[in-house]
Amino acid sequence: MGEFELIRRFFFTQVVDAEAGVVLGIGDDAALLQPTPNHHLVVTTDTLVEGVHFLADDDPASLGHKALAVNLSDLAAMGARPRWVLLNLSLPTVDEDWLQAFADGLLALARQHGVRLVGGDTVRGALNITITALGERPASAGQAMRRSGAQVGDWIAVSGVPGEAALGLAQRLGRLNLPAALAAQALARLHRPTPRVELGLALRDIASSAVDISDGLAQDLGHILTASGVGATLELAKLPRSPVLDAVPQDEAWQAQLAGGDDYELLFTLPASALDALAHLPGKMTLIGRIEAEPGLRLRRDDGSLFTLARKGHDHFA
Amino acid sequence: MGEFELIRRFFFTQVVDAEAGVVLGIGDDAALLQPTPNHHLVVTTDTLVEGVHFLADDDPASLGHKALAVNLSDLAAMGARPRWVLLNLSLPTVDEDWLQAFADGLLALARQHGVRLVGGDTVRGALNITITALGERPASAGQAMRRSGAQVGDWIAVSGVPGEAALGLAQRLGRLNLPAALAAQALARLHRPTPRVELGLALRDIASSAVDISDGLAQDLGHILTASGVGATLELAKLPRSPVLDAVPQDEAWQAQLAGGDDYELLFTLPASALDALAHLPGKMTLIGRIEAEPGLRLRRDDGSLFTLARKGHDHFA
Repeated sequence: MGEFELIRRFFFTQVVDAEAGVVLGIGDDAALLQPTPNHHLVVTTDTLVEGVHFLADDDPASLGHKALAVNLSDLAAMGARPRWVLLNLSLPTVDEDWLQAFADGLLALARQHGVRLVGGDTVRGALNITITALGERPASAGQAMRRSGAQVGDWIAVSGVPGEAALGLAQRLGRLNLPAALAAQALARLHRPTPRVELGLALRDIASSAVDISDGLAQDLGHILTASGVGATLELAKLPRSPVLDAVPQDEAWQAQLAGGDDYELLFTLPASALDALAHLPGKMTLIGRIEAEPGLRLRRDDGSLFTLARKGHDHFA
Repeated sequence: MGEFELIRRFFFTQVVDAEAGVVLGIGDDAALLQPTPNHHLVVTTDTLVEGVHFLADDDPASLGHKALAVNLSDLAAMGARPRWVLLNLSLPTVDEDWLQAFADGLLALARQHGVRLVGGDTVRGALNITITALGERPASAGQAMRRSGAQVGDWIAVSGVPGEAALGLAQRLGRLNLPAALAAQALARLHRPTPRVELGLALRDIASSAVDISDGLAQDLGHILTASGVGATLELAKLPRSPVLDAVPQDEAWQAQLAGGDDYELLFTLPASALDALAHLPGKMTLIGRIEAEPGLRLRRDDGSLFTLARKGHDHFA
């Protein structure tokens, strides 16, 4: 048995779990899964590459967590309940300690959400982590939470505190020197994002559109505006704040919040008639602007003047 | 728009196709798919890495074909009808000609099988191709074609002509010098394998177990034997032959047929009561041995003596 066969056994032990919809798990040519009647299947996949999405010496447990989290975040943005995942791992060498930590981080988050690892592949090559996540949502939800559903007059809301992850990255790269407690908070937000799965489920009946913030709030909101054929104004004074964000100058904080990326918060629109529901959603929600007929995105300061981003968004490949 | 955004648009144009079960295609946080009622979902994924599974100067159209074919082959081995695929592509540079050819090869095979590309990711990094394929089969098929279903007395059958792909690889690597027409045939089998999708569908009611031959006939049959707790004897004289195989010495031909890999033929067992059905299956089928109670795999020559493989199977990572 080669070392890669050992890895397969390490990660990919046969799982048959009728309650989790696994009829036949890892170990055959393909997994057999039992979909829930009257549900749509919701599918997403993300690849993380060393030097682009993470650094070689990043903590492997956090990396395992994050690789899964970014996929669960996409499912959350569609209001799907995550069910099954596949892991494709390309590794230059076999480091058992690294693998154990990576698996622990990934599988802990999977367990937290009742997600089963049902397939994958392991090959020798440059470090590359691809996760494919399968979720479900009632077919009756139709095309709810699609990016094209925003209407003029809708409110724009965001979960959590976007921007902390970007400051965590600046700290990680030595471009920022936060006090220890704030640095720890920012780095945790960068390395261990929390996919807003329960929020996504709750938004199915409320949100007119939704997206998860991976490339920066402004850029991801831009996807909604383009798909919906509308514009928006954000009130910068309304953006959620935190001690981490308060530790940098105002313009840098706004830049991090609007164009930092890696937040994995949900950004969504909702009609005024649904505002009452906001208080019952899980976690911190903040209303930050309104959808307007005029195309484009306006970032308005308290005094009415407009703020311009130094960089539009987080694009690894621009 | 960055060059990678262009690629995304190139491959991943929005598809909504109710007939193909695509409720919401590429372009949102996740795809929404409509599963067929009373069917199981069948899921598999494979990663191809340059230098391990292919060479940098391999024809990109063939590579696109093969990357999809190896996944469809896994679905075929489970008797699943392929429906949707996702493509994760890591690329060191953006070469439009290469991409166009790769996409053409992949999408031509997808169209042939009515498969829709519904998601993926494109990042900058070492060349890495990951495809995830989703298929379906009736829930009433239960655990048909699982590797653990072989019974003592079952016949062992194989589709097509295993071994030609291995000789194609030897030709590709300059270790073999076949006449031009035979070389072309062997290389075509290496670079453009045919996933036995229709055969897989037909085998659901016939085969007691099945596997696709990716790592070599003997090794893949070994998976069935282990999972089923049985053994087998193969009659080497019964192995399907071809002019390509006849062009090399007998022992080399057997080595290629039994341990060459990359065949993507289906290897399956069937009870004697189902032998009549064999004639009605699509393509060439050959009975090559029987399942026995005695553990292990015996490779028997015509004169009754046993053949021993120089290498047990095709393992990229041994």
